[in-house]
Amino acid sequence: MRIGILGYGNLGRGVEYAVKENSDMELAAVFTRRNPETLKINTENVPVVHVDDAEKWTDKIDVMILCGGSATDLPEQTPKFAKLFNVIDSFDTHAKIPEHFAAVDKAAKDSSHVAIISVGWDPGLFSLARLYFNSILPDGKDYTFWGKGVSQGHSDAVRRISGVKNAKQYTVPIEKALEEVRSGKNPELSTRQKHLRECFVVLEEGADAEKIEQEIKTMPNYFADYDTTVNFISEEEFLKNHGGLAHGGFVIRSGNTGENKIHNHIAEFNLKLDSNPEFTGSVLAAYARAAFKLCGERLFGCKTVLDIPPIYLSSKSAYELRANIV
Amino acid sequence: MRIGILGYGNLGRGVEYAVKENSDMELAAVFTRRNPETLKINTENVPVVHVDDAEKWTDKIDVMILCGGSATDLPEQTPKFAKLFNVIDSFDTHAKIPEHFAAVDKAAKDSSHVAIISVGWDPGLFSLARLYFNSILPDGKDYTFWGKGVSQGHSDAVRRISGVKNAKQYTVPIEKALEEVRSGKNPELSTRQKHLRECFVVLEEGADAEKIEQEIKTMPNYFADYDTTVNFISEEEFLKNHGGLAHGGFVIRSGNTGENKIHNHIAEFNLKLDSNPEFTGSVLAAYARAAFKLCGERLFGCKTVLDIPPIYLSSKSAYELRANIV
Repeated sequence: MRIGILGYGNLGRGVEYAVKENSDMELAAVFTRRNPETLKINTENVPVVHVDDAEKWTDKIDVMILCGGSATDLPEQTPKFAKLFNVIDSFDTHAKIPEHFAAVDKAAKDSSHVAIISVGWDPGLFSLARLYFNSILPDGKDYTFWGKGVSQGHSDAVRRISGVKNAKQYTVPIEKALEEVRSGKNPELSTRQKHLRECFVVLEEGADAEKIEQEIKTMPNYFADYDTTVNFISEEEFLKNHGGLAHGGFVIRSGNTGENKIHNHIAEFNLKLDSNPEFTGSVLAAYARAAFKLCGERLFGCKTVLDIPPIYLSSKSAYELRANIV
Repeated sequence: MRIGILGYGNLGRGVEYAVKENSDMELAAVFTRRNPETLKINTENVPVVHVDDAEKWTDKIDVMILCGGSATDLPEQTPKFAKLFNVIDSFDTHAKIPEHFAAVDKAAKDSSHVAIISVGWDPGLFSLARLYFNSILPDGKDYTFWGKGVSQGHSDAVRRISGVKNAKQYTVPIEKALEEVRSGKNPELSTRQKHLRECFVVLEEGADAEKIEQEIKTMPNYFADYDTTVNFISEEEFLKNHGGLAHGGFVIRSGNTGENKIHNHIAEFNLKLDSNPEFTGSVLAAYARAAFKLCGERLFGCKTVLDIPPIYLSSKSAYELRANIV
């Protein structure tokens, strides 16, 4: 299976590592909007190609993995490249998934390609957990918690404040809320009761720390509805301790069955990830395998993780999986 | 969707409750080997029919859920009834799944029916977790823990000892082992390090407690490889506190990615169930919906949970799921 990577940031590098782990895949080329000659990738002897030349590669790539951002890149790129290749993306703007799906589905069907969108862990594996748990326990309540991990949007919001030199924001699930959910009490939880926000901020010389702390804590949408802590640190400490890309989260459903619904069941899926982009890249690679198989069966069009038979993710035979995994 | 239940023990009653929870399903009939006139079921106005008359119901049942045992019932029943109906079973003898699959597949294909075997939580949801986790993190290590919950086989083994009036055996996962796995250390764990066995025993009058305790703890295969505790209790306490059917378990995969594999990721799926048969019955009901849809698409033959697109389990539309679950 010949894989192309389009976009070589953190996620692109994560996919590159994942392709190396899968012996039935090889990296055919990396596509970039930058000058290809200036881009150094981790794999030897793999060409770096300008994205404008991608259409010359249609017979050399089985699945193109799109590693751009959801805000502006993917809404344009995924329909465009679904006309040329089988594609995978990690589109994560939940509210716009139906719209994105429709655009990609048309492009993929018109050109006989397979596209799988919104692949990763949320959306992605967490969507799967929500679907399985809801289908099995129709009378129940779902909870999704995120973290501990970095929120890029919230970090950006803090960095935009005047006097802030650098900032990182961690979303932290509140242990007490998690325990209440796991106990089967089906609590009603406010935004403030589910997650904390922790900020680590490097100030510009002479900036007013107290004023900035207030500005962060009262920022509407981003922080006002949460308990937020603000830690001012040196640039040295920031670079040393806050460069990581760890993340994770929890999907928990609590449901009831039986006479008078006396029996409670808790189903929980959780992830603890040292590197969000490397794990997401690993999910994208597994779904690239599924896209390749679906294309072989001429099941063209756009899909989400909900549509894909789990067995399509594996490199092993159906017989082997029945004997060893079921 | 008209559902039939074949076999009305704990699992059959669990399926009956699950059918009530799903508004797109109705219970058409319960089939039994007993005298149907003596069997009282929980749902009103639903016929109880002798199993020998099942073939008269082929045009009145969309999916037959087989609720017999894996040791002797299902190896015979599932191929037999797959000739007459779309069927679901919870066959759980892991080592014999390929053989069972082959027999059921032939019967289902010859007669244009869909059969889904080994549905439940292990095999079933735990199989799915193992497949997803392995496909996404090829470089890693899997762990499955069971409990805390009742092991029927081990309880039976204790009851067979002379002088034992009644007994219940709980399989208990060892918290320290779970924590080591979750820490990403990828420990090698012996049988003894993963699970404890707790026995609650009612003695016959005049039985020798010390001798029985030794006999339990040294029993090969069942107890000798584990740390086992034996508690002698009164019949009254036994009936009061040990009638439950709670169970649960954990599937955890720890995998590594990136340069020099420095990044560790932990994916965990766990269940805590007040009633094993009611939860298993709920899983069977959701897969009955999938069988019905597959039959509508004429995708006949035998499947396992690995083959089923997750979306087939849901009563909701693909559009609604993309908008709200992905």
